[in-house]
Amino acid sequence: MEIKKGGSVTLVGAGPGDPELLTLRAVRALQSADVILFDDLVSRDVLDFARREARKMLVGKTGFGPSCKQGDINALMVALAKQGKRVVRLKGGDPLIFGRAGEEIAACQAANIAVEVIPGITAAQGAAAKLGLPLTDRKHSRRLQYITGHAKNGALPADLDWKSLTDPAATTAIYMPTRTLEALIERALSEGLDPQTPALAISRATRPDQAMVAAPIAQLAEHLAQANLPGPVLVMLGHAVGMQIAQAAAPLRRQA
Amino acid sequence: MEIKKGGSVTLVGAGPGDPELLTLRAVRALQSADVILFDDLVSRDVLDFARREARKMLVGKTGFGPSCKQGDINALMVALAKQGKRVVRLKGGDPLIFGRAGEEIAACQAANIAVEVIPGITAAQGAAAKLGLPLTDRKHSRRLQYITGHAKNGALPADLDWKSLTDPAATTAIYMPTRTLEALIERALSEGLDPQTPALAISRATRPDQAMVAAPIAQLAEHLAQANLPGPVLVMLGHAVGMQIAQAAAPLRRQA
Repeated sequence: MEIKKGGSVTLVGAGPGDPELLTLRAVRALQSADVILFDDLVSRDVLDFARREARKMLVGKTGFGPSCKQGDINALMVALAKQGKRVVRLKGGDPLIFGRAGEEIAACQAANIAVEVIPGITAAQGAAAKLGLPLTDRKHSRRLQYITGHAKNGALPADLDWKSLTDPAATTAIYMPTRTLEALIERALSEGLDPQTPALAISRATRPDQAMVAAPIAQLAEHLAQANLPGPVLVMLGHAVGMQIAQAAAPLRRQA
Repeated sequence: MEIKKGGSVTLVGAGPGDPELLTLRAVRALQSADVILFDDLVSRDVLDFARREARKMLVGKTGFGPSCKQGDINALMVALAKQGKRVVRLKGGDPLIFGRAGEEIAACQAANIAVEVIPGITAAQGAAAKLGLPLTDRKHSRRLQYITGHAKNGALPADLDWKSLTDPAATTAIYMPTRTLEALIERALSEGLDPQTPALAISRATRPDQAMVAAPIAQLAEHLAQANLPGPVLVMLGHAVGMQIAQAAAPLRRQA
């Protein structure tokens, strides 16, 4: 197939939900896109930044529901760019963090399609900001880590460094944890994680209906199951977030 | 002292340097601020979003140069808010990640000052996006971690979980590493980090003069010293970033 000029792919971080957390560059990319391929986790309000004429296509993929295969998304993205379209691939959070961006960048490079990446605020950053919770602290946390709660097959990740989760001086954000949370916590406790480590489960971070459950990590899965919060859910644990959980249960006092 | 109404403090993430990486909320906060207290690491272009009438005060603090003490910054911030000013505390990257936000939030809460936090894109996110480097990958990296290269006294952090740096399935971003980089790498290698782990040192991430040095981690400090790059410098290591380092040495092909 002939490659038309002017086609491109831009991987854009849609941030955690609140459309005001998009970067200026992300807004500009949306405003100039011909086609937007977006994930389920993208807040629909974010799509309002697009031109009315832009085609907006939902391409999955939430956890393990029926959704487009990654190979199909790559092929669609490349085919549209070859037609000369300015394609925005819009992903929740930051495309470079648990967003399979590497596979999409490689597909573009293999097809000789110009590709750019625009970062986004992660759900952990957005939720922590809304709650006023520091993610690091000079006394309580010198390390911040993001892990994912499931592997390709939906089971616990086999190659996770479990000891790194037991570090009392770390803050850990667990992405996409719901299916595997109980097993993940059980394993981390058996590896030496302090069962009293303060933890939070945050539903729909930064959205108007953001909700949370706070509990020591050993009780978090049980409390979360009772609360039955809508997804997406993010879990954070560590003494830095714990410092202010009491205040956060009542959200930050905002200007009247 | 009497507390005037309407005063507030907003901790704002200025992002890594490129002003287009500010969030919409950050821009709005800058546009409505009466006073902006900013750090050395904040790109001066970001300040152009402020109203012309806003007071802009540099309050430090870069590494270990002469700079305002944290207690002085807290006191100034609180005093201005008590005078009824809308104060923006502007910090490079994300205020909640190595930004001492916890101490500033606590100072505001103790003084009963309304406080909000607006997150920012980190230098690691910005640099990775500009280079097209995934920070996680389903095959090569299931964990992303941020650590800091120095502790309070400028020495290596005493409470760092060294084993977590040796995990071959992690991507690690090291903040403020320059003074301690050689010692930090030596220690990590002695704990078991593979000396061939791909690594990058990135100078002035996302700014027009962003520059980088790529080398296996065991040689990085030597190469960085030879290159004599201007600060701030960020180090990233891991097989996910390594996957595309060859392509990144020539930056992403952008649309003509």
